[in-house]
Amino acid sequence: MSLIVQKYGGTSVADIERIRNVASRVIETKKSGYQTVVVVSAMGDSTDELIKMARELNPNPSSREMDMLISTGEQLSIAMLAIAIESKGFDVISLTGAQCGIKTDEIYSKAKIDEIDTRRIRQELEQDRIVIVAGFQGTTKTGDITTLGRGGSDTTAVALAVALEAEKCEIYTDVLGIYTTDPRLVKSASLLKSISYDEMLEMAKLGAGVMHPRSIELARKNNTKLVVRSAFDFNSNGTEIIGAKKMEKAQVRGVTIDENIVRISVPNVPDKPGIAFKLFSSLVDLNVHIDMIIQNLNHDGLNDISFTVPSEDLDHIMPAINAYVEEVGSSPARIKKEVSKLSIIGTGVTSDVKIASGLFGRFYDLGINIEMISTSEIKISCIIAQDKSQIALESVHEYFNL
Amino acid sequence: MSLIVQKYGGTSVADIERIRNVASRVIETKKSGYQTVVVVSAMGDSTDELIKMARELNPNPSSREMDMLISTGEQLSIAMLAIAIESKGFDVISLTGAQCGIKTDEIYSKAKIDEIDTRRIRQELEQDRIVIVAGFQGTTKTGDITTLGRGGSDTTAVALAVALEAEKCEIYTDVLGIYTTDPRLVKSASLLKSISYDEMLEMAKLGAGVMHPRSIELARKNNTKLVVRSAFDFNSNGTEIIGAKKMEKAQVRGVTIDENIVRISVPNVPDKPGIAFKLFSSLVDLNVHIDMIIQNLNHDGLNDISFTVPSEDLDHIMPAINAYVEEVGSSPARIKKEVSKLSIIGTGVTSDVKIASGLFGRFYDLGINIEMISTSEIKISCIIAQDKSQIALESVHEYFNL
Repeated sequence: MSLIVQKYGGTSVADIERIRNVASRVIETKKSGYQTVVVVSAMGDSTDELIKMARELNPNPSSREMDMLISTGEQLSIAMLAIAIESKGFDVISLTGAQCGIKTDEIYSKAKIDEIDTRRIRQELEQDRIVIVAGFQGTTKTGDITTLGRGGSDTTAVALAVALEAEKCEIYTDVLGIYTTDPRLVKSASLLKSISYDEMLEMAKLGAGVMHPRSIELARKNNTKLVVRSAFDFNSNGTEIIGAKKMEKAQVRGVTIDENIVRISVPNVPDKPGIAFKLFSSLVDLNVHIDMIIQNLNHDGLNDISFTVPSEDLDHIMPAINAYVEEVGSSPARIKKEVSKLSIIGTGVTSDVKIASGLFGRFYDLGINIEMISTSEIKISCIIAQDKSQIALESVHEYFNL
Repeated sequence: MSLIVQKYGGTSVADIERIRNVASRVIETKKSGYQTVVVVSAMGDSTDELIKMARELNPNPSSREMDMLISTGEQLSIAMLAIAIESKGFDVISLTGAQCGIKTDEIYSKAKIDEIDTRRIRQELEQDRIVIVAGFQGTTKTGDITTLGRGGSDTTAVALAVALEAEKCEIYTDVLGIYTTDPRLVKSASLLKSISYDEMLEMAKLGAGVMHPRSIELARKNNTKLVVRSAFDFNSNGTEIIGAKKMEKAQVRGVTIDENIVRISVPNVPDKPGIAFKLFSSLVDLNVHIDMIIQNLNHDGLNDISFTVPSEDLDHIMPAINAYVEEVGSSPARIKKEVSKLSIIGTGVTSDVKIASGLFGRFYDLGINIEMISTSEIKISCIIAQDKSQIALESVHEYFNL
């Protein structure tokens, strides 16, 4: 019998009515002949409420106790969903992360899954039960509860799909699937029928926040078929995320815009070996996602180093950058906040020069200056002025017929 | 080092301010030199809210899933208390029922504790940590979460005190301790400094609902010193519950009134061996607390059997009683709802005839008819008309100088 793993996010189980709705969907899946494993997040904003309550008591609670606290959210929602499914006469059992053998390391609040002992889940499935699993949580070897951090429930779902060798892993969410660009920004955005792991990874990293990159990477590594689809409209088939097929021709699959970045430049850095390394190694421990690093020799024989970081990390990293400026004797760092990163994504986009030139042509037509460019196998990203990002997004989306 | 187990009920941790208050009390206890284990119930009415939510989805949820659901309440409150204690710089760890080795049978929603593997708690105590334990819950051998039913958190606390050989087990509650009678009914009610397990058991069974009899019985069996005291007024020392000392003289320790009972009479039952047994054995499976059974031969050579049951069980047992009436050919059962049970409690009360006669004398003076009497080593209970119960209570309480 084929096995399916489904994951329903917090908004999908935010209230009694929605839990009923998910219960119906799960039962339909079971009736269609699947062994069904369902991963659920905490109801709606309940996790945020728990965090707020805890901070009232203690602005710096330990991660161990926070994990103990917030893991109650998923435990509550699995029980509720199981209770809803029972009411329709189906055999069901809910399992916490501990009960279904999800063993993690001991990094509370952002634990990584070490292994999954699937015996209990297999036993329950063999008894023809629907199995409901608490997302986002696991336990250490000593039985202490951990949570998996951002994207945790998706990670639970994909990891279970891998461990159980599921036919596919369906991620139910509040959108219909993956779009060519953000449909809130561009009305003509269209739903993708399928997309490769790599393309999806770039989409995820560049602000199409439907899935966390971590779970996509896990699926890619194990070649697990993912489907992103709507928890509210079961008629839509959503978007399949699968291994890249060999494409005849490079094709742009999507356009993303990320306004939540800051450009930092450190001008006039002495041109010595290891001097850029020194800058970025001083930032390693701060766990900041640094993107689009550009270094070039300026006319005075000195280097200008520029890079972008998420806006929220700016305050966090400035002390380290100022210390670096001091140490190497460069000019003070310059910060530019009003920038956006526009990216086009598609396997092979950089291998077809027509795509890059088409993109840059749009900017030229619109009189938009490109401040930085970075490319990978499957994406081209440009930093432009933030007040131009909407018009650029629409124009580029239209140009590539998305 | 001496070890103490403290238990805080739901009202004691109902909000952030009260959790802070409990945290201070726990820290004070730790600072006074105790190894400190703290058992906590779910915050305020949170359990009732969970039950209500579940019933919206399913009027008959399985006990297994209900236990999964409501056990989140205690998990939440232990984390919150631990977080509050951390904020004061003390080393603390919260443990679920599973984590602290509380193994139960598989009777979901009213599980009994089979054994406690105290290794984890001992380890944490040896590291000088305050240990916060989720009350009311345990796990089966297969790791499924169970709850202990009514009085569950008290039972957790006493069972831990027994297993850890604690010096004492303090039950923090919303009253100052055990009174000679209900202070809401009789203003002159006074706080008892100490009371024996047996007396406390009678008090508990007869409606002084501070502690559930189950946990008192457990303490008695293991001779574990209990203290019932206020979670809101730490200056009061509360009431000690300890083994009975040999009394020089019988003494009435308290008076209770229970209005929540119904008297059932089955008149004209044939006088044959086993005929009363047949009645009560038919009620065994219904799990009803039957009290004050009286059988006497009436003038027609037939038996009248009377007994009392809690009012809420009346509808539940009537089918069985009517079937009995049918079977033995007695007269139809008679129900009397407007009755109260007044009891005086004290070790040896029945051994000193002055006490019984004093009690009956009060009823005589007040013109109150005694409908039924039952006695034990440590109590005398009388069924009287409900509209007389308040005046009788005041008069009896005053008579015995309580």
